[in-house]
Amino acid sequence: MKEKEKFIVRTDLALEAQEMNVKDDPSSSDSDGVEVHENEKNDIKITYVTVDEIGAERIGKKAGHYITLESQAIRKQDTKLQANLSKVLSGQLRKLLQDMGVDEKQRGLVVGLGNHHITPDALGPWVTEKVLVTSHLFELQPETVADGYRSVSAVTPGVMGTTGIETSDMVHGIIEEVKPDFVIVVDALASRSIDRINATIQLSDTGIHPGSGVGNKRKEISKETYGIPVISVGVPTVVDAVTITSDAIDYVLKHFGREWREKDAPSNALSPALNPFERKELTNEDLPNEEQSQAVLGMFGQLSQAEKKQLIKEVLTPLGHNLMVTPKEVDGFIRDMAHVIATGINGALHPGVEDGEAQSYSR
Amino acid sequence: MKEKEKFIVRTDLALEAQEMNVKDDPSSSDSDGVEVHENEKNDIKITYVTVDEIGAERIGKKAGHYITLESQAIRKQDTKLQANLSKVLSGQLRKLLQDMGVDEKQRGLVVGLGNHHITPDALGPWVTEKVLVTSHLFELQPETVADGYRSVSAVTPGVMGTTGIETSDMVHGIIEEVKPDFVIVVDALASRSIDRINATIQLSDTGIHPGSGVGNKRKEISKETYGIPVISVGVPTVVDAVTITSDAIDYVLKHFGREWREKDAPSNALSPALNPFERKELTNEDLPNEEQSQAVLGMFGQLSQAEKKQLIKEVLTPLGHNLMVTPKEVDGFIRDMAHVIATGINGALHPGVEDGEAQSYSR
Amino acid sequence: MKEKEKFIVRTDLALEAQEMNVKDDPSSSDSDGVEVHENEKNDIKITYVTVDEIGAERIGKKAGHYITLESQAIRKQDTKLQANLSKVLSGQLRKLLQDMGVDEKQRGLVVGLGNHHITPDALGPWVTEKVLVTSHLFELQPETVADGYRSVSAVTPGVMGTTGIETSDMVHGIIEEVKPDFVIVVDALASRSIDRINATIQLSDTGIHPGSGVGNKRKEISKETYGIPVISVGVPTVVDAVTITSDAIDYVLKHFGREWREKDAPSNALSPALNPFERKELTNEDLPNEEQSQAVLGMFGQLSQAEKKQLIKEVLTPLGHNLMVTPKEVDGFIRDMAHVIATGINGALHPGVEDGEAQSYSR
Amino acid sequence: MKEKEKFIVRTDLALEAQEMNVKDDPSSSDSDGVEVHENEKNDIKITYVTVDEIGAERIGKKAGHYITLESQAIRKQDTKLQANLSKVLSGQLRKLLQDMGVDEKQRGLVVGLGNHHITPDALGPWVTEKVLVTSHLFELQPETVADGYRSVSAVTPGVMGTTGIETSDMVHGIIEEVKPDFVIVVDALASRSIDRINATIQLSDTGIHPGSGVGNKRKEISKETYGIPVISVGVPTVVDAVTITSDAIDYVLKHFGREWREKDAPSNALSPALNPFERKELTNEDLPNEEQSQAVLGMFGQLSQAEKKQLIKEVLTPLGHNLMVTPKEVDGFIRDMAHVIATGINGALHPGVEDGEAQSYSR
Repeated sequence: MKEKEKFIVRTDLALEAQEMNVKDDPSSSDSDGVEVHENEKNDIKITYVTVDEIGAERIGKKAGHYITLESQAIRKQDTKLQANLSKVLSGQLRKLLQDMGVDEKQRGLVVGLGNHHITPDALGPWVTEKVLVTSHLFELQPETVADGYRSVSAVTPGVMGTTGIETSDMVHGIIEEVKPDFVIVVDALASRSIDRINATIQLSDTGIHPGSGVGNKRKEISKETYGIPVISVGVPTVVDAVTITSDAIDYVLKHFGREWREKDAPSNALSPALNPFERKELTNEDLPNEEQSQAVLGMFGQLSQAEKKQLIKEVLTPLGHNLMVTPKEVDGFIRDMAHVIATGINGALHPGVEDGEAQSYSR
Repeated sequence: MKEKEKFIVRTDLALEAQEMNVKDDPSSSDSDGVEVHENEKNDIKITYVTVDEIGAERIGKKAGHYITLESQAIRKQDTKLQANLSKVLSGQLRKLLQDMGVDEKQRGLVVGLGNHHITPDALGPWVTEKVLVTSHLFELQPETVADGYRSVSAVTPGVMGTTGIETSDMVHGIIEEVKPDFVIVVDALASRSIDRINATIQLSDTGIHPGSGVGNKRKEISKETYGIPVISVGVPTVVDAVTITSDAIDYVLKHFGREWREKDAPSNALSPALNPFERKELTNEDLPNEEQSQAVLGMFGQLSQAEKKQLIKEVLTPLGHNLMVTPKEVDGFIRDMAHVIATGINGALHPGVEDGEAQSYSR
Repeated sequence: MKEKEKFIVRTDLALEAQEMNVKDDPSSSDSDGVEVHENEKNDIKITYVTVDEIGAERIGKKAGHYITLESQAIRKQDTKLQANLSKVLSGQLRKLLQDMGVDEKQRGLVVGLGNHHITPDALGPWVTEKVLVTSHLFELQPETVADGYRSVSAVTPGVMGTTGIETSDMVHGIIEEVKPDFVIVVDALASRSIDRINATIQLSDTGIHPGSGVGNKRKEISKETYGIPVISVGVPTVVDAVTITSDAIDYVLKHFGREWREKDAPSNALSPALNPFERKELTNEDLPNEEQSQAVLGMFGQLSQAEKKQLIKEVLTPLGHNLMVTPKEVDGFIRDMAHVIATGINGALHPGVEDGEAQSYSR
Repeated sequence: MKEKEKFIVRTDLALEAQEMNVKDDPSSSDSDGVEVHENEKNDIKITYVTVDEIGAERIGKKAGHYITLESQAIRKQDTKLQANLSKVLSGQLRKLLQDMGVDEKQRGLVVGLGNHHITPDALGPWVTEKVLVTSHLFELQPETVADGYRSVSAVTPGVMGTTGIETSDMVHGIIEEVKPDFVIVVDALASRSIDRINATIQLSDTGIHPGSGVGNKRKEISKETYGIPVISVGVPTVVDAVTITSDAIDYVLKHFGREWREKDAPSNALSPALNPFERKELTNEDLPNEEQSQAVLGMFGQLSQAEKKQLIKEVLTPLGHNLMVTPKEVDGFIRDMAHVIATGINGALHPGVEDGEAQSYSR
């Protein structure tokens, strides 16, 4: 069953992988190889997930540190919140670099993965364009570079479909040539939850498998492969239509489950509309027990999570050759998110960049 | 219940509106104010839907003629199929113009509705840019215009969010000034089925309510308002996440329903994967009866279609401020579809444009 | 000769028209219908040119007020200078509106002229996109609009080559429909001097002839035609290759003329390189007298300004079907200039917009 | 003097370098290390320039073969001529590959140099996007590749200003990784003549110095550096404002020189306009002798070509920090030229691509 589960999961977020696992196997606890700490700063929820080898096996994510920032700044198009998000990202990134032993003089390479002609996949290329690049100045006119700046390069390797070259081979060739002291890889991710789309940034010290989120395993860009720190910065921008559906069914279950408990019997009529605040409180504890589940959703309710998803997947797959979807407003979301991330990276890499300036560099 | 139903339906396609209605109310038949004829040409399915006043009331679409072209040309990125689709569109459009009494010399105005910065909404503006515009030549250098061309103008009025002006007011001002003999309005639509996204073109002689597909009723652009023929050309480019889910649940029901009938009892194990061909054959007749429905989906299965959708809507709405989604590959789909439609319009309006040339005009 | 002169002049700037006139006819003085005042604020040179009917006849520009802001902010890509330029523009615009009797509650329409697919002509459309539009809020949700904002709409009418419709007709139709209290028209201009490209903003209360700068007279958008204040905001983005050449020849003449006077005889060898500061001081007084001119440039030197330009024009015209050129860096220049102008307009129209916010609105 | 001359020359075209040299030093002949042959096909002028070591020294271009295609297809926006140009380019490219020993199975890498955000410099990146890439198919699904196709990859290394990395280093890293059998490099060039802008394609077997045309020497991409055939495809898209002026002055001189000879004395009045056909016939033989030159242009006329240009350069340089200009219509020209070149490359590399298809691949 684990097998199937893994096949079905289409998430690049360690946080989601952990949540799904807990949900499916409530006997497991955080202490089984995955540690989770939460924090909140300026309306931004920060979750630290540490995965060890046991946890890696359990949740299907590589051992290492994952930091997740959650904010509605982009979806609400709130420029002040976006500036905050950049600042928090800057701070987290700076700390992660320190933890990985990167000092203030070391030379960085920013790699923007993705296809700049497919908007939900263009986050990496857009960030690269907004990153403050200085390595040529250090090379050619070192006297012109002020204190507080380090040598930074930025590349956009493209995708195999348009270059004909494995992304990881391209990146390999560039790293061998440029020989940076550390690498930051930016990529668009897949999530299994529509509420995380453009609302979550995941940092990690585990590196990246280009394309791993959408099923095609390629070679890894990581500390193991290159012997230098590799930080990945990812944002979910697409969601599998299958997960929209299973989420919905889960919520239906929880919704009836809670009513069940509250009223000791499910209402036959439609419940009052769930408002956003109520919804927040629906948790796994609201899931009905097996018997209740069957009452609510019949035979379907009796299936395990994995079986339910497998069934929905089988049902939906024929409906379209590609079921990854993205919100209608994708253009504006990606543009704003690229701005937030580039500003965050610029602030983290160049202490000399003042906040206001970081914004204008990445305009 | 009709009320609720209408509130929930988010489709701009008469074809879908009719299908949904039949499904919900199997006692109704095609003869109740809606006539449907099908045809197939070069792998393109053409459906003619004629709605009279009774049908209009019943399915919630304005009385008139609707022609729907269905093709996978765009989604398969098949350039030959796309050229075919342009040709078929040209022919249908030419015939519709004739039926509406437009002769070969009359002056046309093409209006591309939508927001060119939101890709799934940019179809109209992209088509306008590829339309072969000639009216200024007729005005300024009539001697340079060859036979087989008519006077055509093309405008992109923008959207209220960026202009501050009601789209219909803007169009009104332009029509009053330009005084065309007929109008073709191109717009992106909402569908309730993910398989129709970028795979369907709807022509109609009923005009258009800018924005009607996404809930906000605005003033109409139609023969009634302007006294001249108004043809609308629309393509569904977004789908409500709610409908993805309800479709899935319907299919689950049908799937179990069929198994039920076939085995006299539902399988407890997962059924073999439904392949695309099998799926095609799942019809409304596969829907289980009420009792079976309850067995399959419990209380949920007992809800009416409308109640189910209402519930799913309530559950999903809080998850994101906007749940209209579009396929990840939206950029390429819209570009290709704009090319197909502009080529079709150019061929229909200017008999002098040869097929090959029609392609190159709209490059 | 005036005739020819006017034919040759390809400038939309009143300042240049006045300078050229003074140069050609040194007996004329500022008092003959054209008043010029200069000012400097934050490295930005502000010139106020007032033209009366006599001056209009003399310099070929409509009677009215012209305000010219000169700054290297864009060409130097200096974001601080650009913010200053926006502020100064805001102030001048606000004052001009007051002088024209526009009060703080009156409703404005911003019109962005030009072709958004031809970058040096895309300034208008780019500005329109960055203007803070509010009229739909005043219409639909007046209670949500804070103090300090007025009703503003913004439109991009396109160009005749792509719409088939005279720009002024399109604008007319929209104004008739929207009925604003005043109009601001933004357009890219032609200059006759390469140093003014993207370095000059001209405000005027005289309205605009769409396309007048490049030879094709069309209908006017002005107070006279609509009975409401019309302010034009223009930036030269292209220069005629002819004027690059005549400027160069003028500078050669001045250069030798000055040497002549200084050494009493021209040097036979190359002079030391003219540095930018030296050059600034070359003025019309450095122009050699007729005899000297002949010595320096032979027969060519004896031609009048108009004859020289006519000759150069005849020589260059066959070299290319279109000789309007723009700097290689046009994409970045236009983007930044659009940002500056939109920020300036937003600040002028909405006193409630704080400086920092004005920037972020127009990002 | 040669020194200065070379400093001033800003052309990447061997043809121009040769012409300029002949002009300046009429005693030199084609036989001194530079062979020139001309041809014409479908309105396209083809010039073959072969430079040996002696010629390389003389004209400042590397020894090798240069093929120049001249056509007004782009500037006239004539799609039929453009299709012809693609076909001729295909043929020349195929022959050049054969001459360099490349067989039909060998694997190619197309490198698009330039900055895709600066339109006149974006030719390389735009071509890369339209090239038919197949190497990943040969790698992953070799059975799906039809006969008549070879393995082709395509990369866009970006420019140092945005990556921080020397373009040649980036290309080096990629070549080392991909190990192609041959390379085609596409780049935008500088010309010294405004009539060649977007009207000339230069092929060469000498490789390329990224950025050499605009003054900044960088490392070479050539057969010498990589041991594999390197073909460069270049199109002049910008011209130095200085050369516009010196060209104009040359034409003025020639114009008066011819009149002189024809009338035995120069006309004092303006000559009748030179029409394009007349102009074509103005040649170096029309240049007046030294005495006449002085009469026509005075002291200026007595300066050598190099001195004249040096003077004009000194005069113009302060006028703007960057004097490379491009035609106003640059966006459309570059888009169309990229289409022509990509179609030409696709046809040359894949014999299996039929003409019509080559067009649609690169749409």
